[in-house]
Amino acid sequence: MTRQEKAAIRLHQKLRGKITVESKIKKIRPSDIQLIYTPGVAAVCEKIRDEPNQKYYLTSKANNVAIVTDGTRILGLGNIGPYAAMPVMEGKAVLYKKFGKVDAFPICLNTIEKQKIIDAIKAIEPVFGAINLEDIESPKILEIVDELEKELAIPVFHDDQHGTAVVTLAALLNSLKLIKKKLETAKIIIVGAGSAGYGICRLLKYAGCKKIIVVDSTGAIYKNRQKNMNQYKNEIANMTNPSLERGTLEQVLENADVFIGVSGMSDILSEKMIRQMSNKPIVFALTNPYPEIEPRIAKKAGVKIIATGSYMHKNKVNNAIVFPYLMRVILDEKIKKMTPKILYHTAQAIAASVPKKDLAMDNIIPEITNAKIQKNIKNAIKKI
Amino acid sequence: MTRQEKAAIRLHQKLRGKITVESKIKKIRPSDIQLIYTPGVAAVCEKIRDEPNQKYYLTSKANNVAIVTDGTRILGLGNIGPYAAMPVMEGKAVLYKKFGKVDAFPICLNTIEKQKIIDAIKAIEPVFGAINLEDIESPKILEIVDELEKELAIPVFHDDQHGTAVVTLAALLNSLKLIKKKLETAKIIIVGAGSAGYGICRLLKYAGCKKIIVVDSTGAIYKNRQKNMNQYKNEIANMTNPSLERGTLEQVLENADVFIGVSGMSDILSEKMIRQMSNKPIVFALTNPYPEIEPRIAKKAGVKIIATGSYMHKNKVNNAIVFPYLMRVILDEKIKKMTPKILYHTAQAIAASVPKKDLAMDNIIPEITNAKIQKNIKNAIKKI
Repeated sequence: MTRQEKAAIRLHQKLRGKITVESKIKKIRPSDIQLIYTPGVAAVCEKIRDEPNQKYYLTSKANNVAIVTDGTRILGLGNIGPYAAMPVMEGKAVLYKKFGKVDAFPICLNTIEKQKIIDAIKAIEPVFGAINLEDIESPKILEIVDELEKELAIPVFHDDQHGTAVVTLAALLNSLKLIKKKLETAKIIIVGAGSAGYGICRLLKYAGCKKIIVVDSTGAIYKNRQKNMNQYKNEIANMTNPSLERGTLEQVLENADVFIGVSGMSDILSEKMIRQMSNKPIVFALTNPYPEIEPRIAKKAGVKIIATGSYMHKNKVNNAIVFPYLMRVILDEKIKKMTPKILYHTAQAIAASVPKKDLAMDNIIPEITNAKIQKNIKNAIKKI
Repeated sequence: MTRQEKAAIRLHQKLRGKITVESKIKKIRPSDIQLIYTPGVAAVCEKIRDEPNQKYYLTSKANNVAIVTDGTRILGLGNIGPYAAMPVMEGKAVLYKKFGKVDAFPICLNTIEKQKIIDAIKAIEPVFGAINLEDIESPKILEIVDELEKELAIPVFHDDQHGTAVVTLAALLNSLKLIKKKLETAKIIIVGAGSAGYGICRLLKYAGCKKIIVVDSTGAIYKNRQKNMNQYKNEIANMTNPSLERGTLEQVLENADVFIGVSGMSDILSEKMIRQMSNKPIVFALTNPYPEIEPRIAKKAGVKIIATGSYMHKNKVNNAIVFPYLMRVILDEKIKKMTPKILYHTAQAIAASVPKKDLAMDNIIPEITNAKIQKNIKNAIKKI
């Protein structure tokens, strides 16, 4: 176990949970209980009963977000179950509060059945202003998002799909600027056709990328491929790979300008493979906790810009920079649905938060503490 | 609207929810994210995956309680739905934190179907150390409790059934002491055969009461009554009313020593009815927010000890004095099931928290802020 891993366990042992539910009323005298509890609270209940929209003004609903997972795809660790998923969800809740002032609460579900997950989320909807779906295996989760978008009155933010796509596009915009290549003409390989791969693919397409190839465990995805497909991979096939390239990752990587790894696997990108890419290659090895390639190896192989999803390295292409700030705006602006347009402008806003003078190969994305991010996203979405 | 009701609404408008989810880590630098989030958190997840019991030590589970309702029986307001239920559940969460240091979160369900309620609770179980069921109509809720006790690994505390029974018994023990009557021989009328009536009946029976009659909308419940019965009323019929009294509340109230109102209806007890009770009558009019009789009317009619569930009056026989303190012990002592024995000793502990010299007709129950309550309950349960 590394020193850092030991430190993480010690911190968690000391805290016994990273979040806590607090009362906003700090001093409570017995007489206050008449107002916050019975009998006074009855008038508040009756007001909401009579004017349903008051639920957004008299309760915590408007600022509550459920972080829902079933534990099937936690980081790159796979299906470790809802109990072992808790530390990640609590970590997200901490970041939600710290950077977005959002009250997020983990909901780790004791079921991996699609319909039961949908039913549970529909059941708990009244308490929340939005749902954050997290680390649920695909394609199940993509079907769940589609279903919930139809059935819930509150927005569904699927972090692996929406958040990852936004931070990836933000990083890519700045990277291409530095390398002096164009979105439209860059050959971009996305490795992984799960939630993240699907989300990134859709958003890059919306942003104008014309030469995207998505690779899964079977190889390049192309129109009318028969093996190992599903509804979402078919959608990918229809919008990417116009020259119908086939073959392994190694084969399609030839002359690629950008590698985007959201494969859930570590160390799948070798020096040899990088040497087949075009000049000044960009590599985003985003799988956590262990990336598709170690940054120092990528650099040794000639990669100009290397980013990971980890907070251990420079160029942190992690959705933590997206979800707290974007959710703040979703809640405040009462956004009902995540559209490519919203995601695109959010990515632009994040990319623009790096001051021009600071933009560099090892500084393509703002620090999470950068105060401009919130303001920029808010302004960008308000203008849509 | 009364002045107090207006004040309650103003307070809720100002707060926009009485609870908030906070990070236990107050200052978060970008480098800390490596420990609380990725990559460091992965080691914590893996530890729980490999040693499941660590979930109680590395996450907030051990101190989290879900306050679950479907909004069908909120206070005495009836079925006002899950949105209008929120202010009560948040109020409970505030009291849980303030008096029990428990992290309670409201789960107001968008379904009133028994099986869907059970499924939702089973689904969210991983996040919580215990479930607090609240304000769900009976007999559905009693069936839900029975079912969940079989299917969940965490304890189920049903506040209307368990909490109300405990505070009622505590108040009754002190009242009878003052009036110099005995539990065993007192004639006790319980009005209401829902969760509270059922819970009080069972606990008083366990405590040694021999002359209990439970009255519902049909009248006195007796063995082999045919009309308006269910499994739980049959249970009541089998353990109460040995002389098989029949008739209306007014009729069975003759010579009664104690009236316990958990009827969900206001102003159903009249002066005339009180005058038929035995000497030195005790009246607990516990329905919220509007009791079965106003205290000043009860006193005028000769009641010696009058208590309500409201924080507006003296003698607050409200489960708020039970649930935060008892839940603290349930979580700390890893209690798996609420038994009559646990409830009985908790009631004794609460009754004993009123100092002997302070015990009086208008001071039968300790103030919620009384620091002895927690200590007494803990000691009482540890001794069992």
